[in-house]
Amino acid sequence: MGEIMLRLSSPGNSRLVQSESMEVNYGGGEANVAVSLQNYGNEVYFVSRVPAHEVGQAAVNSLRRYGVHTDYVVRGGDRLGIYFLETGSSLRSSKVIYDRSHSSFSEVAPKDFDFDAIFRDADWFHWSGITPALSDNTAECLRLACIAARKAGVTISCDLNYRSKLWSPEKAQNVMRSLMQYVDVCIGNEEDADKCLGFRPEANVADGKTDADDYKHIFQRMVKTFGFKYVVSTLRESHSASDNGWKAMIYDGQTFSVSRHYKITPIVDRVGSGDSFSAGIIHGLVNGKPQEWSLEFAVAASALKHTIPGDVNLVSVAEVESLMTGNGNGRVER
Amino acid sequence: MGEIMLRLSSPGNSRLVQSESMEVNYGGGEANVAVSLQNYGNEVYFVSRVPAHEVGQAAVNSLRRYGVHTDYVVRGGDRLGIYFLETGSSLRSSKVIYDRSHSSFSEVAPKDFDFDAIFRDADWFHWSGITPALSDNTAECLRLACIAARKAGVTISCDLNYRSKLWSPEKAQNVMRSLMQYVDVCIGNEEDADKCLGFRPEANVADGKTDADDYKHIFQRMVKTFGFKYVVSTLRESHSASDNGWKAMIYDGQTFSVSRHYKITPIVDRVGSGDSFSAGIIHGLVNGKPQEWSLEFAVAASALKHTIPGDVNLVSVAEVESLMTGNGNGRVER
Amino acid sequence: MGEIMLRLSSPGNSRLVQSESMEVNYGGGEANVAVSLQNYGNEVYFVSRVPAHEVGQAAVNSLRRYGVHTDYVVRGGDRLGIYFLETGSSLRSSKVIYDRSHSSFSEVAPKDFDFDAIFRDADWFHWSGITPALSDNTAECLRLACIAARKAGVTISCDLNYRSKLWSPEKAQNVMRSLMQYVDVCIGNEEDADKCLGFRPEANVADGKTDADDYKHIFQRMVKTFGFKYVVSTLRESHSASDNGWKAMIYDGQTFSVSRHYKITPIVDRVGSGDSFSAGIIHGLVNGKPQEWSLEFAVAASALKHTIPGDVNLVSVAEVESLMTGNGNGRVER
Amino acid sequence: MGEIMLRLSSPGNSRLVQSESMEVNYGGGEANVAVSLQNYGNEVYFVSRVPAHEVGQAAVNSLRRYGVHTDYVVRGGDRLGIYFLETGSSLRSSKVIYDRSHSSFSEVAPKDFDFDAIFRDADWFHWSGITPALSDNTAECLRLACIAARKAGVTISCDLNYRSKLWSPEKAQNVMRSLMQYVDVCIGNEEDADKCLGFRPEANVADGKTDADDYKHIFQRMVKTFGFKYVVSTLRESHSASDNGWKAMIYDGQTFSVSRHYKITPIVDRVGSGDSFSAGIIHGLVNGKPQEWSLEFAVAASALKHTIPGDVNLVSVAEVESLMTGNGNGRVER
Amino acid sequence: MGEIMLRLSSPGNSRLVQSESMEVNYGGGEANVAVSLQNYGNEVYFVSRVPAHEVGQAAVNSLRRYGVHTDYVVRGGDRLGIYFLETGSSLRSSKVIYDRSHSSFSEVAPKDFDFDAIFRDADWFHWSGITPALSDNTAECLRLACIAARKAGVTISCDLNYRSKLWSPEKAQNVMRSLMQYVDVCIGNEEDADKCLGFRPEANVADGKTDADDYKHIFQRMVKTFGFKYVVSTLRESHSASDNGWKAMIYDGQTFSVSRHYKITPIVDRVGSGDSFSAGIIHGLVNGKPQEWSLEFAVAASALKHTIPGDVNLVSVAEVESLMTGNGNGRVER
Amino acid sequence: MGEIMLRLSSPGNSRLVQSESMEVNYGGGEANVAVSLQNYGNEVYFVSRVPAHEVGQAAVNSLRRYGVHTDYVVRGGDRLGIYFLETGSSLRSSKVIYDRSHSSFSEVAPKDFDFDAIFRDADWFHWSGITPALSDNTAECLRLACIAARKAGVTISCDLNYRSKLWSPEKAQNVMRSLMQYVDVCIGNEEDADKCLGFRPEANVADGKTDADDYKHIFQRMVKTFGFKYVVSTLRESHSASDNGWKAMIYDGQTFSVSRHYKITPIVDRVGSGDSFSAGIIHGLVNGKPQEWSLEFAVAASALKHTIPGDVNLVSVAEVESLMTGNGNGRVER
Repeated sequence: MGEIMLRLSSPGNSRLVQSESMEVNYGGGEANVAVSLQNYGNEVYFVSRVPAHEVGQAAVNSLRRYGVHTDYVVRGGDRLGIYFLETGSSLRSSKVIYDRSHSSFSEVAPKDFDFDAIFRDADWFHWSGITPALSDNTAECLRLACIAARKAGVTISCDLNYRSKLWSPEKAQNVMRSLMQYVDVCIGNEEDADKCLGFRPEANVADGKTDADDYKHIFQRMVKTFGFKYVVSTLRESHSASDNGWKAMIYDGQTFSVSRHYKITPIVDRVGSGDSFSAGIIHGLVNGKPQEWSLEFAVAASALKHTIPGDVNLVSVAEVESLMTGNGNGRVER
Repeated sequence: MGEIMLRLSSPGNSRLVQSESMEVNYGGGEANVAVSLQNYGNEVYFVSRVPAHEVGQAAVNSLRRYGVHTDYVVRGGDRLGIYFLETGSSLRSSKVIYDRSHSSFSEVAPKDFDFDAIFRDADWFHWSGITPALSDNTAECLRLACIAARKAGVTISCDLNYRSKLWSPEKAQNVMRSLMQYVDVCIGNEEDADKCLGFRPEANVADGKTDADDYKHIFQRMVKTFGFKYVVSTLRESHSASDNGWKAMIYDGQTFSVSRHYKITPIVDRVGSGDSFSAGIIHGLVNGKPQEWSLEFAVAASALKHTIPGDVNLVSVAEVESLMTGNGNGRVER
Repeated sequence: MGEIMLRLSSPGNSRLVQSESMEVNYGGGEANVAVSLQNYGNEVYFVSRVPAHEVGQAAVNSLRRYGVHTDYVVRGGDRLGIYFLETGSSLRSSKVIYDRSHSSFSEVAPKDFDFDAIFRDADWFHWSGITPALSDNTAECLRLACIAARKAGVTISCDLNYRSKLWSPEKAQNVMRSLMQYVDVCIGNEEDADKCLGFRPEANVADGKTDADDYKHIFQRMVKTFGFKYVVSTLRESHSASDNGWKAMIYDGQTFSVSRHYKITPIVDRVGSGDSFSAGIIHGLVNGKPQEWSLEFAVAASALKHTIPGDVNLVSVAEVESLMTGNGNGRVER
Repeated sequence: MGEIMLRLSSPGNSRLVQSESMEVNYGGGEANVAVSLQNYGNEVYFVSRVPAHEVGQAAVNSLRRYGVHTDYVVRGGDRLGIYFLETGSSLRSSKVIYDRSHSSFSEVAPKDFDFDAIFRDADWFHWSGITPALSDNTAECLRLACIAARKAGVTISCDLNYRSKLWSPEKAQNVMRSLMQYVDVCIGNEEDADKCLGFRPEANVADGKTDADDYKHIFQRMVKTFGFKYVVSTLRESHSASDNGWKAMIYDGQTFSVSRHYKITPIVDRVGSGDSFSAGIIHGLVNGKPQEWSLEFAVAASALKHTIPGDVNLVSVAEVESLMTGNGNGRVER
Repeated sequence: MGEIMLRLSSPGNSRLVQSESMEVNYGGGEANVAVSLQNYGNEVYFVSRVPAHEVGQAAVNSLRRYGVHTDYVVRGGDRLGIYFLETGSSLRSSKVIYDRSHSSFSEVAPKDFDFDAIFRDADWFHWSGITPALSDNTAECLRLACIAARKAGVTISCDLNYRSKLWSPEKAQNVMRSLMQYVDVCIGNEEDADKCLGFRPEANVADGKTDADDYKHIFQRMVKTFGFKYVVSTLRESHSASDNGWKAMIYDGQTFSVSRHYKITPIVDRVGSGDSFSAGIIHGLVNGKPQEWSLEFAVAASALKHTIPGDVNLVSVAEVESLMTGNGNGRVER
Repeated sequence: MGEIMLRLSSPGNSRLVQSESMEVNYGGGEANVAVSLQNYGNEVYFVSRVPAHEVGQAAVNSLRRYGVHTDYVVRGGDRLGIYFLETGSSLRSSKVIYDRSHSSFSEVAPKDFDFDAIFRDADWFHWSGITPALSDNTAECLRLACIAARKAGVTISCDLNYRSKLWSPEKAQNVMRSLMQYVDVCIGNEEDADKCLGFRPEANVADGKTDADDYKHIFQRMVKTFGFKYVVSTLRESHSASDNGWKAMIYDGQTFSVSRHYKITPIVDRVGSGDSFSAGIIHGLVNGKPQEWSLEFAVAASALKHTIPGDVNLVSVAEVESLMTGNGNGRVER
């Protein structure tokens, strides 16, 4: 459940002020997770609201194209959220301008969804911190969805996904901490844990220096506080807009695992990489894999995402497994 | 004074639901008039409000590129209005989806502008019926602008430009009729006169059958009611999305003139053709030309607009005059 | 049931020998019908076979994108059929080069499908003369499909769709005449009826001169011979590659109806217009509409198809009904 | 023998002042003739001079791509001539801006070519009035080429091709009349005959009204004055930039033939249509066809050129013959 | 002699399942060698077979464009082989999907070529292991070509070029070992030598660790077994799809030379780099250069190929020599 | 004051000989400086001459688009200078082909400008060594401009910018040394100082090894000789076309400062990076910043330029300051 937006990006590395055309993609945190999971062979239903015009329909089509079921995408409201993206390079960061206020999904109401029906045969429910941040409406809908999911015995995962443009740390913690009671699998990075939940790892991430022990300590406290079954975190080392290091950690209350580390350069499009990581974790856990396998799958999958234009991660299980098992040398596959 | 929007159009004749990229243009009724007039060698200042981010800046740049002065475009608000366009062909109409609510300009306030300064050395002030339709804020700003313009002895023209998505005929008449006291040159077509002012010509425009006498009668009543110096109207015969007839009429309270008739096929892009007509009328009158010359210039200019992609009419005075004097046979100019 | 192909077209009106890029679409007679019907709100399942690689997957995705169910698209074989298209203009015809031999679908086998399951809850089964023409394998599969459909009480429609590159009139008649026993609704034009069934209308279509009476006579004989519930035919007047006339006729054994006539110019893409017509007829009849309504819906829908790039007809019921009721003057819809 | 230029055209119908990219083609009167003739199966050698850098090489490659032999294209000079093109539509003319001064070819010298070697095994030599208009250098080279060609018994054709930007009628007549002694086949339209040779048909071409008798009279005088074996002229009726009528006439000193008339709409790209006509005439005559066949072939070929983007006419003999024999109804060729 | 294919690649780094257009190139192992050699100033004739339609013609044109002679490219068969390419980045490999079965060239017959005529004035004959792998027809034609070339005293080079999708190591060795009797210059990498000839270097190439001594030993055995005049091998270190090391070795039976090593990052397009290496070797040897020069030329040329989009290596001798002599610092050449 | 040219670049990393379209930008040393300075909030007037046609107008529009005042761009002459660019990668250099002879600006005359009026309210005058290199006309105009600027008390900066295609070191020194009397701020790199002024630093720049002490020594001598207030130099380490090091030095006659060093990889477009550096220095100094701040601003600004396609540096003061203060890790800005 979440918002799907129209993404408009200037071509190549051009800036928004110079572009005479824009590339069209559709995405959003939860939508990106949905497509990844469907690509891996899971049956996924996206829950959202889009306007009843062609642009809203195109967003629905973008999900259908990759097999995501859209039965629970209701129509209404005036506009689809939009974000503008220009893709940086080396010393220049990518830049996102959001134009998502007053979107169809942000004006959703509880009556738009029959959550009991939605969760009847479901195994897993995923949401991100963006959804309750959008509006009081979405926060309330999400709360009801969590209650219904819990009632239906569905596992719930949350990607904390803090967005400073949407809410303050105070408001975020106020809302998010109360929602954590419904969450089984908590996913985030060091900033998310700090801003959404008030747990601040001591890592100096800007310099790419991270201390696993420190993370383990934080994870233990998070499990203790909120009763999570799993805490998961990614660790990005940003050397430049074109060159990142990438790894992740998971903790199930007993074992703390650190994944393999990937060097990713050049980066084609890093938007949606966190979402592709969440999808990898869910894919492993919902299919009964051990946490170590799930973690490695998720890290490899999201490493590959950095090489694919657009929000969504168009890779197959076979491709991810090939990278997991060490085949990242880039020989041509004929 | 008016709104400038981001125009996103699907390439060629493709539909919005199938397009993977969008062509970027910036336009809007009054902005289109501004560019045309600057192209004809007049010094034009655009009055508006755009958000202080790159997309807003790109809108400003689109005006500067064609020489329009942007000193009175203030920055503020959250978003630039957007409209999506798919270009029809033969039996299929072009389609516009507006996403302009909550735009930076619609949330403008009187304090954003110093109208006395703006009109100090001005000769002409042009606005369209879209501006007061956007919000009560814009309607109030416009009223103040008209008062200041009148005080400064500036000629005021209005393109009635009725938009049913923005307001009802009742609201339109309520607002527009009271603003007509400030208007010297009233421009519109048969639908605009009906919906904005309550004057309905008897013409059966859908069939391309129009009776000049009937228009003359209406024009006389409009002049009598509102004290216009000039009433001007275009007459479009829509045979198909690719094939239109085009002419216009003007009345100065004494003489009623009907222009030459143009057959335009195939049409490349008819968005902004009404605006290019207004600009033609203003160009003639502000430069002291007779109403007949102004009318013929305006009709020829706007006929050419149908052949140019984008909102704005990128033609020179020489090109318009060449068509006015009969050179429309399309020989290659080498 | 049918083949879906990769369509590679040179951009704009360029020729294949000069193009440095190709536009990618996916289509095929029956696939085009499927997308149209899904667009009109019917639940459609496509039955086919594609190779288990990314190009095959992209073909499946093109159907999913517009909501067509692909549960019965099996994977196997080596290649997806391809066709190259260059789009003509005025005096120059469009040109299609087929490269569909040895395609995955042409090497299909009866064991690939469980037709009883496929037709269990179905209302309608549509196929075209291309399917049995592809190979003996496809012809045999189609025969079995027809038997299963009939057993399940499903209405069967056939678009005769003669293709001289695929088989001779002799072979076509041999195969098609024996399949006609399963057909309830027979769709075709004068050439199809001649080459596939041996019924030749006297119409001089090349000159756009057609005699409805003559068609009626032929239709009566076809109904008598094959027991069709409906015989339907389109009538294209080809004035040039950019300018066609378009109408159609239907006969239910009692009443013979001729549709409104549309002049379509300029034509954007006429590939798939016949398929969009078939979809229109099926949409009307499967939803219990009278044959006259179904015919007018089908003709208007397929007239609109000529204005849309790509094989498939991306129009809504509302848009078709708007044209049916006379709104073809191409005014901008705002 | 002639100049080949880089053609830079704004995409679609956009204007030069608004285009952010340009389409690249290479062409020029004689180069266009060369490609057409090679396409028809004749062995063609192009004689010219281009600069020894990548842009010059790309011009050579554009000829080689279509099989034209470039053994006699020498390297030297500083720049390739350029022309900018924007493609008009309906009431707006296409516009050409030349930037060809100081081009490599215009600074050619007699020592660059060994004309005796060039014409040793040649059957035909074609040039146009553009070549002597470029510079005194090219005029002198051309004179020497004509002398060598005549000495070698080669038939010589000339397309008068008057260009007012390159020279005045006085200078043109001064140069061209003295070159006519070497010409066997004289090709031009009414304006060319007037400006280059001083023979003015009485036709009112602007209105599309032409009197064959008048042309015949002029042709007779031209044959008498210059000793041409054939005089050939095209007749274009320019209704608009998108809609032309097209036919031609030939006279061999005895019989005066008028071709079939073609209506061409919409026009894709009319640049190079005159050259494709010349190539058609040459193809017929050099292969021993009667003048009537040659004329019909040339008119049909050049009618097709109007439908193809770029300077050169990418059609086959079979396609031209198909149109000559009446197949211009634009049915899809599958 | 070899196959030329249509290459369809998704733009930039997009995946095939997401691309709405494809870039068109034409290439194939031997065709790529042909273009490179012609670019270096050698006169090259390509021997192949393509279908007699526009797509086949476009393949021929792609060779002619760069000056390759196509007199020995015969027409026939149904289809041009196709391959789809998506270009990887960093951790994601490029991927090739072949659709080349039943191609025109794979169905070639000995009667299609007069090898005695073809080799009459030739100096060199190059082929690759792909040609005999395509079909028994091509293997037999190749055998006859080798015999004719030998008879004509032509030097023969072979790029082993093992393709696992085309044949098994057993079949490859069976065919290739018997053809080696005709080969003077044997080119390949460690995998080719192993799969085609059964000689396996001990190098651990995946890790970029290679032992020149080991290669020398293998080369000595290959020379002894097959009587090659030269054995040549490239050594690619695949760090990622964007970052490769590149060097090569040559052995003439006496001296074993190892080239300079190049680090190539980022890689634009590595398809065809092996072919550009073969062309470099041939260019050196056929022009009488020492093997060390030939090797350095070949390695530098193929290093440059990695920076050029498309299959073929569009560099000049001067550009290669500049890199050979150390000028690889990438300063702008003005 | 300087020339603005049409830049035609092949898309992506394609070569000029293979490109079928060109991207259009407008730029030139001084024009690039003008746009940068206007982007930083300074009011900039460009002084130049362009032809009175659409391509000249488009050059003017490219300046107006970014707010540069074009009141002093006069119209006249025949052509706009052009340069062709292909963008290299890794081992392949970018390549520029100039076609700027006989340009409108190179044929400028003193009477075209009223320098007293131009400099009346100006603070700063910038020119580069390209301007006097173009022609004797431009050199003379520049000399007069310098005299007028000096008279008006305007600070004068010069980017030495040696171009070997335009003049020899002898001619350059002859002209440039005499112009140095008017220069307050001298900008250049080691090659410029050598070729234009005869001062050769001992640095071995090709290897990226530079000795600050040596530069300081040279700078001292330059200040002594010409009386500069500031001497500024950039230092580029060219590792490859995609990977450069970048830093700079400034000397005000007393303090010698060396900037921070940036590693820039991958490089998107390095054309115009020197100009963006000059603009950064001017921005700092004209706004009264210390030389250290100005230097760091200039280096950071020009480092960012390497990531932006086109000649001009589309960055804001805020973006440059963010990089100056260490934020170059490329995190997405949301």
